[in-house]
Amino acid sequence: MKALVLERQRELSLREIDLPEHVAAGQLKIKIHTVGICGSDVHYYTHGRIGPFVVEKPMVLGHEASGTVIEVGPGVVGFSIGDRVCMEPGVPDLASRASRLGLYNVDPAVTFWATPPIHGCLAPYVIHPAAFTFKLPDNVSFAEGAMVEPFAVGLHAANKAHIRPGDVALVIGAGPIGIMIAIAALAGGCSRVVVADLIAEKLSVAAQYPGVSTVNIRESDLAMSAKAATGGWGFDVVFEASGSPKAYDGIFDLVRPGGCLVLVGMPVDPVALNVVGAAAKECRIETVFRYANVYDRAIEMIASGKADLRPLISQTFPFEQSITAFERAAEGRKSDVKLQIQLAT
Amino acid sequence: MKALVLERQRELSLREIDLPEHVAAGQLKIKIHTVGICGSDVHYYTHGRIGPFVVEKPMVLGHEASGTVIEVGPGVVGFSIGDRVCMEPGVPDLASRASRLGLYNVDPAVTFWATPPIHGCLAPYVIHPAAFTFKLPDNVSFAEGAMVEPFAVGLHAANKAHIRPGDVALVIGAGPIGIMIAIAALAGGCSRVVVADLIAEKLSVAAQYPGVSTVNIRESDLAMSAKAATGGWGFDVVFEASGSPKAYDGIFDLVRPGGCLVLVGMPVDPVALNVVGAAAKECRIETVFRYANVYDRAIEMIASGKADLRPLISQTFPFEQSITAFERAAEGRKSDVKLQIQLAT
Amino acid sequence: MKALVLERQRELSLREIDLPEHVAAGQLKIKIHTVGICGSDVHYYTHGRIGPFVVEKPMVLGHEASGTVIEVGPGVVGFSIGDRVCMEPGVPDLASRASRLGLYNVDPAVTFWATPPIHGCLAPYVIHPAAFTFKLPDNVSFAEGAMVEPFAVGLHAANKAHIRPGDVALVIGAGPIGIMIAIAALAGGCSRVVVADLIAEKLSVAAQYPGVSTVNIRESDLAMSAKAATGGWGFDVVFEASGSPKAYDGIFDLVRPGGCLVLVGMPVDPVALNVVGAAAKECRIETVFRYANVYDRAIEMIASGKADLRPLISQTFPFEQSITAFERAAEGRKSDVKLQIQLAT
Amino acid sequence: MKALVLERQRELSLREIDLPEHVAAGQLKIKIHTVGICGSDVHYYTHGRIGPFVVEKPMVLGHEASGTVIEVGPGVVGFSIGDRVCMEPGVPDLASRASRLGLYNVDPAVTFWATPPIHGCLAPYVIHPAAFTFKLPDNVSFAEGAMVEPFAVGLHAANKAHIRPGDVALVIGAGPIGIMIAIAALAGGCSRVVVADLIAEKLSVAAQYPGVSTVNIRESDLAMSAKAATGGWGFDVVFEASGSPKAYDGIFDLVRPGGCLVLVGMPVDPVALNVVGAAAKECRIETVFRYANVYDRAIEMIASGKADLRPLISQTFPFEQSITAFERAAEGRKSDVKLQIQLAT
Repeated sequence: MKALVLERQRELSLREIDLPEHVAAGQLKIKIHTVGICGSDVHYYTHGRIGPFVVEKPMVLGHEASGTVIEVGPGVVGFSIGDRVCMEPGVPDLASRASRLGLYNVDPAVTFWATPPIHGCLAPYVIHPAAFTFKLPDNVSFAEGAMVEPFAVGLHAANKAHIRPGDVALVIGAGPIGIMIAIAALAGGCSRVVVADLIAEKLSVAAQYPGVSTVNIRESDLAMSAKAATGGWGFDVVFEASGSPKAYDGIFDLVRPGGCLVLVGMPVDPVALNVVGAAAKECRIETVFRYANVYDRAIEMIASGKADLRPLISQTFPFEQSITAFERAAEGRKSDVKLQIQLAT
Repeated sequence: MKALVLERQRELSLREIDLPEHVAAGQLKIKIHTVGICGSDVHYYTHGRIGPFVVEKPMVLGHEASGTVIEVGPGVVGFSIGDRVCMEPGVPDLASRASRLGLYNVDPAVTFWATPPIHGCLAPYVIHPAAFTFKLPDNVSFAEGAMVEPFAVGLHAANKAHIRPGDVALVIGAGPIGIMIAIAALAGGCSRVVVADLIAEKLSVAAQYPGVSTVNIRESDLAMSAKAATGGWGFDVVFEASGSPKAYDGIFDLVRPGGCLVLVGMPVDPVALNVVGAAAKECRIETVFRYANVYDRAIEMIASGKADLRPLISQTFPFEQSITAFERAAEGRKSDVKLQIQLAT
Repeated sequence: MKALVLERQRELSLREIDLPEHVAAGQLKIKIHTVGICGSDVHYYTHGRIGPFVVEKPMVLGHEASGTVIEVGPGVVGFSIGDRVCMEPGVPDLASRASRLGLYNVDPAVTFWATPPIHGCLAPYVIHPAAFTFKLPDNVSFAEGAMVEPFAVGLHAANKAHIRPGDVALVIGAGPIGIMIAIAALAGGCSRVVVADLIAEKLSVAAQYPGVSTVNIRESDLAMSAKAATGGWGFDVVFEASGSPKAYDGIFDLVRPGGCLVLVGMPVDPVALNVVGAAAKECRIETVFRYANVYDRAIEMIASGKADLRPLISQTFPFEQSITAFERAAEGRKSDVKLQIQLAT
Repeated sequence: MKALVLERQRELSLREIDLPEHVAAGQLKIKIHTVGICGSDVHYYTHGRIGPFVVEKPMVLGHEASGTVIEVGPGVVGFSIGDRVCMEPGVPDLASRASRLGLYNVDPAVTFWATPPIHGCLAPYVIHPAAFTFKLPDNVSFAEGAMVEPFAVGLHAANKAHIRPGDVALVIGAGPIGIMIAIAALAGGCSRVVVADLIAEKLSVAAQYPGVSTVNIRESDLAMSAKAATGGWGFDVVFEASGSPKAYDGIFDLVRPGGCLVLVGMPVDPVALNVVGAAAKECRIETVFRYANVYDRAIEMIASGKADLRPLISQTFPFEQSITAFERAAEGRKSDVKLQIQLAT
């Protein structure tokens, strides 16, 4: 079938490629409707690798997808042909020690769409385990369905924070993930969220959500803003979503005694961690790796209206213009949050 | 000063009574503005007792209050004359074992307004510890400030549930506390909440909140509704807020595997608990006693707009009509949620 | 092969029966060495049913087993022929919603040895998933390996209690499970454990463990003993392991403010739960269903010497005397803790 | 009275000094029996400061103390003259926001013995709040009572780890605190603990405890040892107790997926934290600041015999030889764990 193939760094083709077609026990065949472009897709395109994951042979891109069930494998219950669905792109070994503990996202054996050498979902059809496929309610569009994946990252971060009702949170970094976290933290129990960044356009996107206030750290001192925003007590939760090593400088000044820091951004090199500063407040630090067990929750949040992700879809491209879409994504326009590719109608 | 005094069961007077006037170290003198009438106030009025707490001598009623600081005791920092505030009515021994653990609400030595023999706050002035007094933001009215206390009950229940972002909850009982819980659970991270009761008027009050759906258990089977509402999986959290022993019949059929039941309603007699039913799903059962450490969170939720309590104020009476207000409360009109008494302007 | 078959209530045969022999992907074939007799085995023998689980056709008994790997199925890593192992008798659908959450024990699809209609392990060989098979260290005997299952029940209860280092616990009921809980609670972080029962012989078994003290509730008032044992504060954790409805009478008087009650015993009928008593202390109530993710931990505890289960093996019978062993078990001798059947040498 | 006074860096006197003698409400007067010398005492002696805490005027040293109640202040219940006790050296503002949450150790207003400018307890008598004084059972000696403070550090670290029964832990650093952590982790629920250091004498002290194995990282690669000790899975909990920045290199290779790292050692400068390494396993990182709410637990652990601290008392000096004791402590002999000073008999 015809798919969007990353041939090698900086070379994309929309061309025929052999992909699995057999629907085994426990699996579904899904006709893809919409696929969002993630920063990692773009990074494979522009750099040919992410850390140890190197594109060594042609690979289909894409892992944020929604679609329609067109075939139901043996033994599958709960799905029918025609079901509108979205798919969790990481599939673990369910019998592994980590999976049995419910931590399937950190199972070393997990395979993940568009992470070399696994093909992604920018193709007309995919075969996927029913256990990692989720039905979309009628009031959730395919476009929103393809937003479940990035929102799941934010929701998992909010989950790991163990938000208590009424917590006041800070999100450092207003990129797509930072905004997802802000939305998830508010929907997930925070009373209000402050989002900090140094790019005004990104902060404007965040600021349209009720409950979000913003700090432009080009213009204001973050520590002073934090004090002002919390009456000097500090934030209950700080989400580091910038990935910038600079964010760690003085970060524990922003957290309340007994508060929590969630590390979502992934700095390439080790960062400078002030252990004494963390200890003086007995901060807990949580880390996240993708997500686990949050797809159903993400869909509930979208369906109930608590998480409105539609304003984040900056533009939608037809499948034929996939390469144009990736070129646009690679530009990194400040006002773009999410670009999507639509494969079906 | 002139206060609303419960002389004995069924006898209220608005009359002069000697109350403390000295502002000691750590204390504030507060001019009362608004006081809400709680079911417990009404119960002392109509029954003269609640369980072991018996009204044996005249007692000022009221414990849901807001007001203005008019004197600041020695050593108090963070408060000034003129501050608009609300007050946490339970004052523990801060040096007790329970308080040191952060569980000051279950300190056996706690004193609580309008719980015999402690006077309540339906009086022009009260003396109160600064540690249990909380400033109201400008956008929170005195009327809302007097709603912080009952909302704190709901918020504490939501807190004890350890809601995970996106949880789907059921609240059994649509009385004032049930509605507070529904609002708190939604603001506190649930994606949606089902409220069950057998009185249509009460369900109508709940139904006006986005994210709330209702089940009239006179008309529908709750177990069937629960299945339908959760795709057969069960609710992540069930809040029992009716206090009815009947609610315990089949209650674990409503909870998902690994879910939580929070007991908020207080049945006078022991209830029939199906241990096998709870165990088959490994349900966790949480109990609550008033609240601790949630006033600041409740105020944040109201100030941010996540918890809009204004629709719950059914009528406001001037202080002079306090007795009328209590008579109305004792009627138990189905559409009344909260009656308030205003002492100042 | 020849197995111990429960033909119907009160009728056991040691006879040939067809059992699966094919070792599929992910499975092991295990030669059984030792099998312990559990109260549930005896109950099926004497009553022909446990609640909804009815013995409607002949069923092999036994679910507490150790043995030796004699065949390794396709795709299995980490096991070799000759490995000494014990087996977790419940096998869930790993793709189910509960299993993905790590709660595989409450997966409704779980199959469990010797729970009708599933055959147990009192047979020379079993086929079992590698994911639910655990290697025994050299210093753990087959007899101890067959004790892992009942100890897992105790360890899971200790786990659900969320013991904090130094907690003081009470175990109500000194049957085999009560004793397992006491050992697990001590090894799992309690400083000391009080065990209560009304049978002196059972208490004597518990009393041989350092850190255990006992209360014979025939002779002493449990509430008074609890007060004395905890300086009036109450136990951090109370494990109800008697299954007696009477145990619930005044049970919250035994728990400290903010403490935890773990329900392990399974009373047939609903019990009388004092909600007000629980709430006054904000007790948390945990329930347990078998266990999940504790076999590796149980083996570590036995191997390290923190849990010495050998004194609990009252007698071992050869396989040929299996029926005699069950008759002895059905007698319910007060000093018997665990009877085992040895199938291999 | 005559006390051990640090006049300034490197200058100690045993001399008369005015100390408070008035026993206010809620306080006790305690005759000091034994005081342990802590690394921080020695550090003030040798360096005149610890970070921002500078010895600017003469200060009595010592904060690890036991003694006998000789006067009981007004309003104190539960203590009598003659009670043998130990004292928690940090006293917070119980009305503070942190204290109300149960986090009194991170209350910014806490005063702590022998932390400038607060006098310590190396004096014949101290005045102390009853709420921070704990009775010693008959079977706990004064020497052990003076060990409660350093053991509390270990126990608090074990508490923050949220040990699950059967966890396998690694302690990096075999100094006094590392050893306390190892003992606390074992008593607190671990099945076994590996202790790593590069000084053989220190490892020998740790190795005498059942359940402890050791790794000399001069001789063995810690990552390889960790793999071997945990079957390649990693430790459930890693306690960093060396304070060495080098310990952070590769530290997440030692932790299991979903495991926990507890930072106890206090490196002066920021350390290099591998965020990607932590995230790939979703490690949780906990930090500790002294301790809160563990004194009673520490005493229970010592009294029950689960924590035997007596082998750690290397030598006891009479009060008159206090300066000699400090000089010996300042030598930093490899085989010294704890030196104590005895003031009374």
